[in-house]
Amino acid sequence: MTFQHSSAVSVVGLGPMGAALAETFLGKGISVTVWNRTPGKADTLVAKGAHLAATVDEAMAASPFTIACINDYPTMYRVLDGAQGGLRGRTLVNLNSGTPSEARAMADWAAEQGLDYLDGAIMVPPTLVGGPGSVFLYSGPQDLFARHRATLAELGDPRFLGADPGLAVLYNTALLHFMYAHMNGFLHAAAMVGSAGVPAAEFAELALGWFAPVVLDPAGLASQAPSLDDGAYPGELGTMVMNLNALEHIARASAEQGVNTAWPTLMQELAERVIAQGHGEDNYFSMFEAFKRP
Amino acid sequence: MTFQHSSAVSVVGLGPMGAALAETFLGKGISVTVWNRTPGKADTLVAKGAHLAATVDEAMAASPFTIACINDYPTMYRVLDGAQGGLRGRTLVNLNSGTPSEARAMADWAAEQGLDYLDGAIMVPPTLVGGPGSVFLYSGPQDLFARHRATLAELGDPRFLGADPGLAVLYNTALLHFMYAHMNGFLHAAAMVGSAGVPAAEFAELALGWFAPVVLDPAGLASQAPSLDDGAYPGELGTMVMNLNALEHIARASAEQGVNTAWPTLMQELAERVIAQGHGEDNYFSMFEAFKRP
Repeated sequence: MTFQHSSAVSVVGLGPMGAALAETFLGKGISVTVWNRTPGKADTLVAKGAHLAATVDEAMAASPFTIACINDYPTMYRVLDGAQGGLRGRTLVNLNSGTPSEARAMADWAAEQGLDYLDGAIMVPPTLVGGPGSVFLYSGPQDLFARHRATLAELGDPRFLGADPGLAVLYNTALLHFMYAHMNGFLHAAAMVGSAGVPAAEFAELALGWFAPVVLDPAGLASQAPSLDDGAYPGELGTMVMNLNALEHIARASAEQGVNTAWPTLMQELAERVIAQGHGEDNYFSMFEAFKRP
Repeated sequence: MTFQHSSAVSVVGLGPMGAALAETFLGKGISVTVWNRTPGKADTLVAKGAHLAATVDEAMAASPFTIACINDYPTMYRVLDGAQGGLRGRTLVNLNSGTPSEARAMADWAAEQGLDYLDGAIMVPPTLVGGPGSVFLYSGPQDLFARHRATLAELGDPRFLGADPGLAVLYNTALLHFMYAHMNGFLHAAAMVGSAGVPAAEFAELALGWFAPVVLDPAGLASQAPSLDDGAYPGELGTMVMNLNALEHIARASAEQGVNTAWPTLMQELAERVIAQGHGEDNYFSMFEAFKRP
């Protein structure tokens, strides 16, 4: 079935992120149809050349594929139910955030409707969309991704992760966890030294000016990643028992200084669990075994 | 009181780290006296020119100052009690790991003995001592640090943190917490995607090849550090409520995928607490307020 399309891509949902996507396309000379539940949000984009669709149905018919950037899944289902012309033969790229099971459930639902469906995740804030370093993750049918890759590439480096439609969201939540862990690690550390009157800005000179670039070098962690797949954690350069000693010092120091102890205590407990499982003489990466299990 | 010293520095405790300290001095042409409870450990160092003291007393008398690198504080007290010639007028730089209160207690005890005492922490593994990027932290009497600074500098960039003798150990535990948080963040994230069959080595390409260098850039965090001291967290570019939404997705995704949920759940709870305290429309750095309190 072939449609006569009036634009290259449609964007539905014009919050800060949806608007950034549409504006990026327009800035690169790509024709865009937009739609939002509250139409006023489209005014700036229309002034820049976007075509405003009156309904989500019209938006989805206007282009070879539609990108949805809508708050949550319940809203998403409501919006799509409003497509009076039906969804069969249409193509949707959903950039919602949520969980892997929500993405998989929507892929199943889309298949029932005859809707071609690709799930995705945006790895940069709205201000960085379309710029250098911008990365978008996609999962679902590979041929569908291949068909729209060139247009999607205007938003940022498009990384295809596999056929499981939950993968984009799973990578997204995993990377966000890594980010929050890193930020929280700095904040907790700043709270520890702050308890002795050290300003965070002073601590940052050492912690971020020297320690993070040298000791938290991503290449060091990357060199250990294959050992996680092998489940081999040789402890010649340091054992879990030695690391538990350090983790105990962190928990005790946090308690002594009157800052929060919940996190250091949890890390100590997870290390004790891994040692109880027989990893006492293995290296620190054997902690992977604790995170893999409920 | 002036002694006739036979070497520039003494090192007591010749585990992997103490041996690395002594060897670094010897490699830079600095005369070293060493002592260890089990004398066999000194053989390699003696072959390289170290003077072997028969007692801790002889070691402490042989040099203007002595560096101690001994497992823990109880052992440290036992070793020092063995100094038959007394401790008055001697100088000790203690590079033990422990907690701030242990360092402060030993500084008080040293003062009673008439022992000049500096506390410190080693921020690199034994293999990197004395090399580029090596950093040592010190706290205690500033004049004592100044007197021995040049010799200490042979081991690594010596950073003086202040008169509170607990500061070196406090910085040390805070920085180690930051390191473990970062490593654990990657390991938990790898466990999340691993639950869908993604090899850690494949995940590392994206997480460490792109995400960490770009998104976890230390300069980005450093630019926010002054706001922690001001307690001002303006939420124009993102609020705690938005971040809680992401933290909930991480916790739910971890549960769905059958990996460990304790950590994501804790982070979600801390975010909820900060929001309950009125920071819902503040930015993510208001999480500092949660880490500052028990």
